[in-house]
Parts: sequence; C-alpha cells; structure tokens
Amino acid sequence: MDYRFSGNVERLQSSAVRDILKLTQGKEIISFAGGLPAEELFPLEAVHEAVDRVFAAGKGALQYGLTEGYLPLREQLCARMAQKGMTVEPDQMIMTTGSQQAIDLIVRVLLEPGDVVLVENPTYLASLQVFSLSGLRVVPVESDHDGMIISEAERLVREHKPRLVYVVPTFGNPTGRTWSLERRKGLLDICSRWGVPILEDDPYGDIKFDAGATYPTLFSLAGSADGGGVLYTSTFSKTVAPALRTGWAIGDRKVIRMMAKAKQAADLHSSTLDQQTLDQLLRHFSLDVHIRKIGDAYGERMRQMQALLRQQGWEDVKWVQPEGGMFLWLELPEALDAEALLRCAVSKGVAFVPGASFFAAQPQRNTARLNFTYTHGERMALGISRFAEAIGEFTARR
Amino acid sequence: MDYRFSGNVERLQSSAVRDILKLTQGKEIISFAGGLPAEELFPLEAVHEAVDRVFAAGKGALQYGLTEGYLPLREQLCARMAQKGMTVEPDQMIMTTGSQQAIDLIVRVLLEPGDVVLVENPTYLASLQVFSLSGLRVVPVESDHDGMIISEAERLVREHKPRLVYVVPTFGNPTGRTWSLERRKGLLDICSRWGVPILEDDPYGDIKFDAGATYPTLFSLAGSADGGGVLYTSTFSKTVAPALRTGWAIGDRKVIRMMAKAKQAADLHSSTLDQQTLDQLLRHFSLDVHIRKIGDAYGERMRQMQALLRQQGWEDVKWVQPEGGMFLWLELPEALDAEALLRCAVSKGVAFVPGASFFAAQPQRNTARLNFTYTHGERMALGISRFAEAIGEFTARR
Repeated sequence: MDYRFSGNVERLQSSAVRDILKLTQGKEIISFAGGLPAEELFPLEAVHEAVDRVFAAGKGALQYGLTEGYLPLREQLCARMAQKGMTVEPDQMIMTTGSQQAIDLIVRVLLEPGDVVLVENPTYLASLQVFSLSGLRVVPVESDHDGMIISEAERLVREHKPRLVYVVPTFGNPTGRTWSLERRKGLLDICSRWGVPILEDDPYGDIKFDAGATYPTLFSLAGSADGGGVLYTSTFSKTVAPALRTGWAIGDRKVIRMMAKAKQAADLHSSTLDQQTLDQLLRHFSLDVHIRKIGDAYGERMRQMQALLRQQGWEDVKWVQPEGGMFLWLELPEALDAEALLRCAVSKGVAFVPGASFFAAQPQRNTARLNFTYTHGERMALGISRFAEAIGEFTARR
Repeated sequence: MDYRFSGNVERLQSSAVRDILKLTQGKEIISFAGGLPAEELFPLEAVHEAVDRVFAAGKGALQYGLTEGYLPLREQLCARMAQKGMTVEPDQMIMTTGSQQAIDLIVRVLLEPGDVVLVENPTYLASLQVFSLSGLRVVPVESDHDGMIISEAERLVREHKPRLVYVVPTFGNPTGRTWSLERRKGLLDICSRWGVPILEDDPYGDIKFDAGATYPTLFSLAGSADGGGVLYTSTFSKTVAPALRTGWAIGDRKVIRMMAKAKQAADLHSSTLDQQTLDQLLRHFSLDVHIRKIGDAYGERMRQMQALLRQQGWEDVKWVQPEGGMFLWLELPEALDAEALLRCAVSKGVAFVPGASFFAAQPQRNTARLNFTYTHGERMALGISRFAEAIGEFTARR
C-alpha cells in the first residue's frame, strides 16, 4: 500500500542525537553525543532492592494504575518539590513517560496547530520536535549566557501573541547556560502581564557542581500555589536512571486534569512497575546523597574536559563553563561547519552533536554540543584527542 | 492564570471506564467495569525472576534505549508473530507504551485533523478518545456479531474516503465479538481496492476459550510481508501484566519509521526496564502455557457469569456468548438507560460500564459491558446479585 503521511510528521526531522546514538551503537566510537548519564554511577543495587520490595507487595503491583500516576510516589514527590519552594498537592501532579512526554502533553492540551511558541535560542532539540509534530510556529528569542534577552522576549510576545514560552532555565540543553535571577523574574513578569503560560523544563536542575549554590525555579519565584502560569516538569532520568522513563509535571489543577485526559488517550498510564520502584527507592535510599555524588563526579568530568580542550591551545574555540548539567557548548572557528566536522570525527572514532539542530531558525553552524558525563578518564582524553585531530584537519584546510 | 485549552482536548470526554475505576478505588464496590486481568493469575514470580536477570546484566540495563524498542525483545516477538502467520523483521516493529500508544502514534503519523476514520459500532472507547484528541471525524459502520456489514463499509468508504479503518476483529471490546473469516476477507478486499490502511487492534486475540480454535489476523490474511495495508498492534497487558505497559505495532517499514519519529517526540522510548524484563521472561518462562491457563480460567469465569445471569430468568436481557476476551455485552430492556442504572448499581456496591460511550454516534443506551475476568467465584455471584437487584428496581418502575 502506498501510505500517505500527515504533513507534520513528514516535516518532522528525526532527532540528530538519537540518530547518531543509533549509528554508533555497538561500534568502537567514543561518544560525546548523547545526553547519557554515567552508567557506573547508577544506583543499581538500590533500584534492584526497591524492585524486590515492589514484588514482595504482591500481584496487585502488576495491575493497571491511575492515569495520573502512582499516588504514593506523587505524595513523596510533592514533599521533594516543597523543599525546592514548590508547594503542590498530588492532584497538581501527573507522572509521565520521562519529562519528554510532559512537554508533548502540555502542547497537546494548550496549543492548536499554527499557534506560536517562544523558545530560547538555541534550545532542546526534542522540544523542537514536539512543537513541529503539533504543527506549531516556533519563534526563537535572542539569548545569551544569562538567558533570554528580556526586551526581545517582550517584543516577540507583543508581536506574535504566543500560547506558550518554553525554557530550560537551569543548566540548559545544549548550552549548559543558567539564567540569572533578573532574567527569570523578567520573563515571569512579561508572561504574567501578557497571560502567556511558561513551560519550565528542569531535567538537570539537581545536577549542580557547587553543592551550596541555589537556583530558584520559575515556578517557585512565581510565588503562587498553582504555579502562577508556570508549568514545571522534571524527571528521574538523570538522578536515578533513564530506563525507568519516569518524569512528572506540576502546575494548575485544571491543566493537570486536561493532561490526564490527553494521557488516557496517549497511553493510559506510564509503567507502574517503574513508578512503584521509584516510590520504594525514595523510601529506603538517600537520593539526595546520591545526587550530590553525581553532581561532584560530573563537575570533575566537566573540568577534565575543559582542561583537555584547553591543552589544544586553540584560540578560536570558545565555551562558557557550565555550573551544572551534562553539556559543554563549543563555538568553533567561524567558517567551520560542525556537521562536516562530525563526519570526519566519526571516521576517527569520536562523535558529538553539531549545534545546528538546536536552533529553531538560522542555525549557527560552527557550534557543537559535547556531553561530559558518559565518557570519562582516559577514554575522554582519547576522545578529545580524536576530536582535536578532526578539528586540526579542518582548520589546516583553510 | 486563565488557561485556554485546545479545542480537541476541551471536546475530549474523559474515559468513563477509567473514571469509574477512579471512583471505585479503595471502596467496597464489586467492579465489572474495568478491563482488568485477573491479578491472582499474574506470573509474579516469573516476572520477578526475569527482573533479577535484568539487574544481573549490570548497570547498562538502566541506560537510555532505542526509540524503536529493545532489539532482543523485538526479535523474540517477531518469532511469536511468525507463529501466527505474520512474518516480519525487527525493523517492521516498534515497541510502545501499551497498544494504546500504538493507536495514538498511528493516528498521528497517518491522519490530519478533519480526516475520517471508520470504526465498528460500538468500538473500543479509548480509541474513540484518540480519534477525538486528534480532531478526526469518526464514522461508525453498522456491525453485527460477525463484524462490520461489508456492504455498509464499502458504501461509507466510497462516501467518506476515510484515511483509516480501525477494527478489533477478535474478541472485540466492548462486544466480545469475533469477526467471521468472510467479513475479514471482505474488509481486506475493500480496503485494498480503495487504498485505505487498516489498524488491526488485537489485545485479546491470545485469550481464547477453545484451545484448538484459530482466528487468523487480518495482517496474516493480507498475505504480504509488509502487511498489505494492515497495521497490527498487540500488547503484553492481558497475557503477562498491565503494569509493564508494553505493547507493539508491526507493519510497513515506512510507517514504523514514521512512528519512531513521532515517538521520539512523544516520549523518546518506553520503559526499557519493562522491555528487558519481558525479554528475559520470554527466554525462561513458557508464556504459551501461561496464556492457555488464562484462557481456560477466563472461559470458566465467562460461563459462571452467564450462568448467574441466566438464573435471573430475565426475558429481555440478551447477550451473545464470546469465544474469548474479557467482556460480556448485554442488551438490557429497551427503555432502560444504563447510565441511570449504573448510579443505582454503584449505590448497591457494584459497577459496570454503560454501553453508550462505546458508540461513535447514536448510542444504544440500553447496553452494558461486564468484565468477567477480574472478579470471580463468590464475589462474582454477589456482584451479579447486586446488579440484578438494580435491574429489578428499574424494570419494576415501568
């Protein structure tokens, strides 16, 4: 049969990151491409013990669950959210298949095809895919290392009347940037005045390198029990393990109810084996101690990668040191196309993500995202030397 | 903030079944409402052993996986599909969060808002929700106990040029009906001539009461390696356990690739802990023996429920005995509105699903779906006597 496809899916680009992941699977390639957490830090034993406790609870544990998610887990998560200044009740929370699904559900309940969403520039690739799949118009807002330029955001809000602003204000992907307090408040102010909901995507907020630093979420700054127009999403993928595919969203009760209606249709509910496991994990394992361990290890890896890059003595490769998260964002020599560089790098046995796909429009082609959490130690050194070789070949050609 | 919602989600009815499930949670209500498998038959120990083997494999088991799903599981599933006459390769299969997500993804890649989908009448409620969420026009085809009336299907295909025909040909939900071979071939013939893809939803096909009976799928009857225009979906929810939320779809490679693109945006991938667990389960546990056990037990429960209903001596309550699946579909006295009956029944401590919500148009209000798999033995007898009491009150009033 000659299948016809919907326009939105025809136009949808497959994720460059996941395609590279697929390309490199099983091959001897050192990958700085995926946003993969460090496997050796997974709390395998603790998760296994948690699963055992779920099975000890009996056969009911394997039955269908609520669309909104496993209530005891939501209750525990509400307590964790409160510690971050986000005081919500379980009926303001929905469990999702990773925070990725939260983005998709929010878009499906709040936006119509053709609606405008404002994003940072560059921004999280897979959010751009959601927006594209739903036929939205994506308008990027000029951004620097402190976040969106607020005057620009306001100008574009006036001009485009967006139905959503999507941001990753803490240790963003791909840039690793952290919004200043002033910019956070500035965006809240604009969105509150113009009645535009904000989707605050916070998968990395816990992964900070300075244990004492605090990064208030937009949701907490809004200072309203219902989020004051902010919908917040996060995930266990970076703090526990991605395989469990468990994220959540919090916000206004009505939005959460609508998301639950949409989720009934989308997949009924997410894995309750995973949710019950996480519930048990939170009861018997100090996740905060574990998160500190991850933050420290990743901080060290970030510094290692920076040191390795500095050793190359490049004058025209630039980056800003991130305060947390999983990525270094490189600006390469101006004439260098990172997609061409990638092909050369893969032939030398190293992968990264060319920056272009993170831009909603007018991509800056001389940019690259390097993950520093997955590959470490000598392998990281070998990977960076291969990467440097590839860059050397390109700059020599000019 | 005053949130505005998308028209599709505003119009979307919350699932009656899941709302009743929520209503009855924790209460002393005997429920024939949900499509819940029998908990006491869950292979808890075998699943637990399978999970243990996944953890023994090491920390990599907790990492991100492929959007298409865990390859060893897909390979095993392809062998199982081949046993049913559906010869497919792993790249013709995508793992989903229950078969529910397969329906949603297929709709998202093949249809545009306003497109027409043909369905049986009545049909699976949560498929109607997917169609509604995507803004489709649903056209029900007059159907009897052998399936869609083929001449009617053809007339409506001519008239509406649908972009999809959705069917549950084996042990359907809510009716329990099984399509005759002639109707199966008839629909294939029309759809092939008119170029309309068929979505064959087969969550119950394995749950047959007669061990020797065979029910060829539309996919196998189409006799083409790429499904010949049929996309087929099934799930482990009824044969192993719903909590693992693992379904799959097979079909034309191009459609599967498009579904993977859409799934990247929707949730990146489904739980790999669950998928790896099922992979291990299939390697060390005889799922077919287990499925036979379920089929036998459910057949007995179906006969028990029928016997209990017959004991009431009602002349104007009718049903057709199903050959498999999980539901009895009752036609109640003509003037009886099953939604009003439900309120009365719940007050007496028993729940079922009024039939109206399974109709895309012109609901037959004197219908009810009773699940016979979850509640059994004396509790089933008590539940049916409460149900009979409620009916008695209603018929006495006339």
